Amino acid sequence: MSKSSEYFSSVEPIKFEGPDTDKTLAYRYYDKDRVVMGKTMEEFLRPSVCYWHTFCWNGFDVFGAGTFDRPWQKLSGQEMAEAKLDAAFDFFARLGLPFFAFHDVDVMAPASNMKEHTENFARILDPMEQKMEETGVKLLWGTANMFSDPRYMGGASTNPDPEVFACAAVQVRQAMDATKRLNGANYVFWGGREGYDTLLNTDLKREMDQLGRMLSMAVDYKHKIGLEGPLLIEPKPHEPTKHQYDRDVATVYGFLERYGLTNDVKVNIETNHATLAGLSMDHEVAAAYALGIFGSIDANRGDPQNGWDTDQFWNDPLDITRTMIHLLRNGGFTTGGFNFDAKVRRQSIDAEDIYHGHVGGMDMLAKGLLSAAALIEHGEADKFLSDRYAGWDGDLGKFIMAEGTTLDAVADRALSDGVDPKPRSGRQEHLENLVNRFL
Amino acid sequence: MSKSSEYFSSVEPIKFEGPDTDKTLAYRYYDKDRVVMGKTMEEFLRPSVCYWHTFCWNGFDVFGAGTFDRPWQKLSGQEMAEAKLDAAFDFFARLGLPFFAFHDVDVMAPASNMKEHTENFARILDPMEQKMEETGVKLLWGTANMFSDPRYMGGASTNPDPEVFACAAVQVRQAMDATKRLNGANYVFWGGREGYDTLLNTDLKREMDQLGRMLSMAVDYKHKIGLEGPLLIEPKPHEPTKHQYDRDVATVYGFLERYGLTNDVKVNIETNHATLAGLSMDHEVAAAYALGIFGSIDANRGDPQNGWDTDQFWNDPLDITRTMIHLLRNGGFTTGGFNFDAKVRRQSIDAEDIYHGHVGGMDMLAKGLLSAAALIEHGEADKFLSDRYAGWDGDLGKFIMAEGTTLDAVADRALSDGVDPKPRSGRQEHLENLVNRFL
Amino acid sequence: MSKSSEYFSSVEPIKFEGPDTDKTLAYRYYDKDRVVMGKTMEEFLRPSVCYWHTFCWNGFDVFGAGTFDRPWQKLSGQEMAEAKLDAAFDFFARLGLPFFAFHDVDVMAPASNMKEHTENFARILDPMEQKMEETGVKLLWGTANMFSDPRYMGGASTNPDPEVFACAAVQVRQAMDATKRLNGANYVFWGGREGYDTLLNTDLKREMDQLGRMLSMAVDYKHKIGLEGPLLIEPKPHEPTKHQYDRDVATVYGFLERYGLTNDVKVNIETNHATLAGLSMDHEVAAAYALGIFGSIDANRGDPQNGWDTDQFWNDPLDITRTMIHLLRNGGFTTGGFNFDAKVRRQSIDAEDIYHGHVGGMDMLAKGLLSAAALIEHGEADKFLSDRYAGWDGDLGKFIMAEGTTLDAVADRALSDGVDPKPRSGRQEHLENLVNRFL
Amino acid sequence: MSKSSEYFSSVEPIKFEGPDTDKTLAYRYYDKDRVVMGKTMEEFLRPSVCYWHTFCWNGFDVFGAGTFDRPWQKLSGQEMAEAKLDAAFDFFARLGLPFFAFHDVDVMAPASNMKEHTENFARILDPMEQKMEETGVKLLWGTANMFSDPRYMGGASTNPDPEVFACAAVQVRQAMDATKRLNGANYVFWGGREGYDTLLNTDLKREMDQLGRMLSMAVDYKHKIGLEGPLLIEPKPHEPTKHQYDRDVATVYGFLERYGLTNDVKVNIETNHATLAGLSMDHEVAAAYALGIFGSIDANRGDPQNGWDTDQFWNDPLDITRTMIHLLRNGGFTTGGFNFDAKVRRQSIDAEDIYHGHVGGMDMLAKGLLSAAALIEHGEADKFLSDRYAGWDGDLGKFIMAEGTTLDAVADRALSDGVDPKPRSGRQEHLENLVNRFL
Ligand SMILES: [Co+2]
Ligand SMILES: [Co+2]
Ligand SMILES: [Co+2]
Ligand SMILES: [Co+2]
Ligand SMILES: [Co+2]
Ligand SMILES: [Co+2]
Ligand SMILES: [Co+2]
Ligand SMILES: [Co+2]
Repeated sequence: MSKSSEYFSSVEPIKFEGPDTDKTLAYRYYDKDRVVMGKTMEEFLRPSVCYWHTFCWNGFDVFGAGTFDRPWQKLSGQEMAEAKLDAAFDFFARLGLPFFAFHDVDVMAPASNMKEHTENFARILDPMEQKMEETGVKLLWGTANMFSDPRYMGGASTNPDPEVFACAAVQVRQAMDATKRLNGANYVFWGGREGYDTLLNTDLKREMDQLGRMLSMAVDYKHKIGLEGPLLIEPKPHEPTKHQYDRDVATVYGFLERYGLTNDVKVNIETNHATLAGLSMDHEVAAAYALGIFGSIDANRGDPQNGWDTDQFWNDPLDITRTMIHLLRNGGFTTGGFNFDAKVRRQSIDAEDIYHGHVGGMDMLAKGLLSAAALIEHGEADKFLSDRYAGWDGDLGKFIMAEGTTLDAVADRALSDGVDPKPRSGRQEHLENLVNRFL
Repeated sequence: MSKSSEYFSSVEPIKFEGPDTDKTLAYRYYDKDRVVMGKTMEEFLRPSVCYWHTFCWNGFDVFGAGTFDRPWQKLSGQEMAEAKLDAAFDFFARLGLPFFAFHDVDVMAPASNMKEHTENFARILDPMEQKMEETGVKLLWGTANMFSDPRYMGGASTNPDPEVFACAAVQVRQAMDATKRLNGANYVFWGGREGYDTLLNTDLKREMDQLGRMLSMAVDYKHKIGLEGPLLIEPKPHEPTKHQYDRDVATVYGFLERYGLTNDVKVNIETNHATLAGLSMDHEVAAAYALGIFGSIDANRGDPQNGWDTDQFWNDPLDITRTMIHLLRNGGFTTGGFNFDAKVRRQSIDAEDIYHGHVGGMDMLAKGLLSAAALIEHGEADKFLSDRYAGWDGDLGKFIMAEGTTLDAVADRALSDGVDPKPRSGRQEHLENLVNRFL
Repeated sequence: MSKSSEYFSSVEPIKFEGPDTDKTLAYRYYDKDRVVMGKTMEEFLRPSVCYWHTFCWNGFDVFGAGTFDRPWQKLSGQEMAEAKLDAAFDFFARLGLPFFAFHDVDVMAPASNMKEHTENFARILDPMEQKMEETGVKLLWGTANMFSDPRYMGGASTNPDPEVFACAAVQVRQAMDATKRLNGANYVFWGGREGYDTLLNTDLKREMDQLGRMLSMAVDYKHKIGLEGPLLIEPKPHEPTKHQYDRDVATVYGFLERYGLTNDVKVNIETNHATLAGLSMDHEVAAAYALGIFGSIDANRGDPQNGWDTDQFWNDPLDITRTMIHLLRNGGFTTGGFNFDAKVRRQSIDAEDIYHGHVGGMDMLAKGLLSAAALIEHGEADKFLSDRYAGWDGDLGKFIMAEGTTLDAVADRALSDGVDPKPRSGRQEHLENLVNRFL
Repeated sequence: MSKSSEYFSSVEPIKFEGPDTDKTLAYRYYDKDRVVMGKTMEEFLRPSVCYWHTFCWNGFDVFGAGTFDRPWQKLSGQEMAEAKLDAAFDFFARLGLPFFAFHDVDVMAPASNMKEHTENFARILDPMEQKMEETGVKLLWGTANMFSDPRYMGGASTNPDPEVFACAAVQVRQAMDATKRLNGANYVFWGGREGYDTLLNTDLKREMDQLGRMLSMAVDYKHKIGLEGPLLIEPKPHEPTKHQYDRDVATVYGFLERYGLTNDVKVNIETNHATLAGLSMDHEVAAAYALGIFGSIDANRGDPQNGWDTDQFWNDPLDITRTMIHLLRNGGFTTGGFNFDAKVRRQSIDAEDIYHGHVGGMDMLAKGLLSAAALIEHGEADKFLSDRYAGWDGDLGKFIMAEGTTLDAVADRALSDGVDPKPRSGRQEHLENLVNRFL
């Protein structure tokens, strides 16, 4: 047994032990088979561990070198890739979560050109498939990393050079094929460099059209190969670019409408990206449902005082609960899930810290689900909401929304009725207290 | 002659005197008949003075009472409205700018119900029309204030109570009628309360549909009465609400697509609102052109360190020039213009200060136009841009964008060609220097 | 009995009923006599209701008129002031909280000059003192409003005009006298206009010296009249000004050092102001303790997506608990307390909403106290912290901190010892989980 | 001649050619011998090129690998260090700027422990000194990098482990020695990791004391070795840490007061760090002068829409001019200068781009100086300012500021005089126009 495959072995497989356990590394709330509003926690939450933060990152940042001491990071090529795979699936299994997610370059031996890329990526798929079979861990989504290689410095699909688009096409095709082969439930696009550093060297319209072209091609390819789940765009407003085109849910919606993609493409919403965009996470989720493009969630958090993507584990009970309310009201995920796009801090250098991050993150999702379910089952919050809009189900409301009704007709009716709306409290404080009661 | 009509008379009509004049209150750059790239400055900039900030606001803020001593603000009812009208048109004329803009409630005697509203608004239209004729000042756009009256505390079109929507319909119809009568070039919607304070009491989907309904009705009404210019939505991310639905240009685009409104509705982009949304003004303008919904501009600025709408006069030459480049590249305004949605500071209590604000703001727009035109006529910046994307006009680019081309086809070609894109500098520093050369 | 004094009577006095009560308006956690780590909850939290938000504000904002229908707001002069007093103390008593806080102008009949100010303020003190006696409600702090009157538009102590400073002196003296008379536990300065709108018209150094002068005079006056508690400066970074001098705790500390005021002046830290300054609340509290200037807390919250002072009720359990940890570790308040500087939303128009805001806010403080106490009593978090710094209590640490040790000595020792520090995990994820365990 | 030493040779030494030159890489405004308000531009601006961004960084960011192709970056050890030195001094000389600045690790062969560090750093000093003699380029400041090596992940002076402090002491001593030897005009501390990632594992008070200890030791050492210029602390609010102790100028001032360091330690203000702290650059400079701790400037800019340190070249004429006004009013630098702590964008991959960045940055500083000087020589802005505060030089102002005057005395005088301050306009719009006139 290699050192890599032992890296996580000092901790026993994580078990549910309930809120009162003294054990640090146990689930207090995540009881995977517990049924909440008709689904087990595992079915509802569909948790996924990501490959990149935990197995690829070495703790470096822009101001300093890596701090971690992961054994596989001392190896290279295919040997490194396979040692990493061992470690990753050992960790997945010990956590006991059902899904994982990865970029092509996360799992493969590094490549220096496209040919090597396709070969190296292909070479890891057999062992990966085998690990999945052995552990039962499934693929929530696959994706292609089209932002780390220097060729993508000016964008992938949105690059001023069509040759770069062509390279991206190679990666997307192969990553979609791999996702299909591994029964991935979704396929994700995060356009890390699909934006600009300055408008002065950028043709916005061309670049949007290029991005639309790539997505349209990918949709066709998805149908061709029979990849069942949706494509997911992951919005982010900026970083590393000054401005990224897929800024937030509403922006992606407009983009999808523009290129006729709303049927096949949904969103993968990341908490930290919402924060960076100046939006609350519950807003983004509620908006995605309202616009019919909700797909999946990258569960993490940013630092409220910092302006970059810190990708910390999401562990704020209030924030999680407020988001969970919208999931529950809308039936939860179909193909999506909660993917932990989160990493331990650069000072958290031990294997144990990786457990703490994931176990705490998992538990807070479970607790948030319980809180939101209790609120909804209590009923008052939802009743308040439907009462508040009751007028729109009444005579005047229906009249206004009826297709033939004109502005004239509404205005005339208002004046002839001497309409004088009665102010009613929005009861914000009461509703906030209600949520807090169930935390 | 009333005191109100004399309020601005201590300053002589503002004239163009060139950059070297010693006079403080003169135009240094705004020479309205000077031709820049084929249009006079006046034709290109289409400047407009707004009614609300200068004639209605008394200098109050949330932490303190009004500080201004405008004579008409001591009057009431129709007498106040007419004294204000006198002062406003005297100021418009002395500034020598071609347009103005107003909300219904800005110009009329205050009303306590809808019936009174329609009567009071109607009563000011004759004197207003007469003032316009006397001075030659034209209407850039009209709009209805559907956010100040307490009835709109929970939104106008997006109110949970359809009776409030009906009140809004009364105002919109009358304000559109007035705009038509006064030959307004556009009609604007700023949805100050069309958003929410908390998602806990809000049904996002219903509210968006209600807003879509109002806009659709207004589009039909526009066609019915023959109002020629477009309807314009003015994006703003928040304030007074926590979240406003018409957050930014891209969000509005998605909204217009959703409700089939892109032909008739465009955007009125405000600099300060872009800032609040975390976007640069040149981005918003470029995005609106790229998406085909550019309409008009509310020219002002926010404070880079403050998080609310300060509505200061826009006077940053670099920022203005960078925006002007996109206007020039796209042919400038059709029906829109630069509306000074800007106010003097609360400590700027004199009539003279109002002149300083507008004269400085006007001059910086004119200077920015000259700078941008010089850059474009110099040619290098535009040539760099078209060279940068030349590959997309070449063989591979056309192949990728051609309708039948599949992902497979592009990927196969990339691999068989052994594509290996050559990195090229984005030349950001050089382009920034180029812009600065012409400031 | 007047209508004002009945305004709050529809709700029975709020009682502690425990977490499982079905009653909406009851304390679930605030059990005032419950002892937590040696003090009763009431003694530890010292909760206070503020006068301004609830009794003075009518629901207006910059974009719209007042929405509330408080009976006393229809009256004027001394009659208004006394009706408001009736309502306020009735509410205080029904809430069952021990303290309140006020500005001079909150409680008195409006005045149009300084003489009237002193008379009107004086006139309300007898009835106020009587109400305090009747209800047993005590004064946490008094203060003077030196920002709402137009005379203060350019600052109070920092005004370019010394006459304005002199007016401020009148108010400060009288408000300090009143605070003394009413046995107030502290006296607060919030410098709402003590800053600038533009540096172009501002002499920073002069204005800081003026502010230092006022504080020094107030300290002397405090000693003269025997006011026992400290003066408190309430930091805020901006709003209404572009920049306020008392930006945050660290800035105030430097200011107090500069003018020799650290013994007599402490800080009153507001959550929302910390947020606006780009700082977390627990940081501000920890920093104030570390710097020896912790005084009191204005308990509220801002909106994480909005850039102005929303002054909402603080109800985030995680955020409160993290702050409470620092209070508990440092012995809590001496003269200070938790003052609810918070207001219901503009759409929360009923008396009932005011109860919801305060009851929910009170309960979350109590719950946060329980959570933090449980964490501290559990012990692991504090032990981790002292272990982490143990080296500084050891040989090398003491050597470094010893007065005579030079840079040379430390560097030489490091080299001769071949010092090679062993990296140790910061355990951030584990500590975060620990906190969450006790929420 | 090595390839490294030829890297910058395709561009001829940069010359002043005036605003009308067609040449791209020439100074339009920076005419080093031109006298502005009594000093040559070179004497006033004291421009410096930094070592780290241009010669050490390879274009990587958190999301992608290096994009630059600098020949010396393919070498290693001392050979790399010397090739880099060749390239750097060739560039300095071709730019024609008088100063440079560096961290120890920027210039030396990488080291894996403290002993190697001292040896490798020592080894580069001879060649460096020789390059300085050959080119006449002087050292603006030296510093030690105590943030990149993993040993500093938890801070240098503020590390929980005193052994790490001891390592820092080794670096500081040697870097101060080197600065002395190379006649550096200042010595800088940027505490990149002197802060925390979470308060949960941090003892604020201990860490501040540790930092105070290091600074005090360094001050003593400075006197011991006769290093003449001041120590400079470079404020930054966060990044890479969540919170850095030297947040902004006012915070540093308080820190210096606390540890008695105001005589020997000043600030090195970076534009981008001011932006990140929510402060304007002219504020930071004005504040540093007002508090008596102004030292030097790291000239760069951030992106107004991005929340991290982008370190772009500073080229906004208005922003620079507003800062320059405070420099001119206060006599400019003594030991400090404008250090270009700025880097070309990751897509700006050519040597030429490095020239564009520095030449444009240099020119905009020169232009800003000319603009600010013109404003000051015009006189109106300064006169307005002194007139505005004239009352404080008058009878009442002097009375208030006089040492013995009490609050009572001022309040009594205000009341007996019936003081009623006359409001005067702050003239912000006029002053802004005045500044713009001279851009
Ligand atoms: Co993500
Ligand atoms: Co992220
Ligand atoms: Co506007
Ligand atoms: Co605005
Ligand atoms: Co407060
Ligand atoms: Co506040
Ligand atoms: Co710097
Ligand atoms: Co920086």
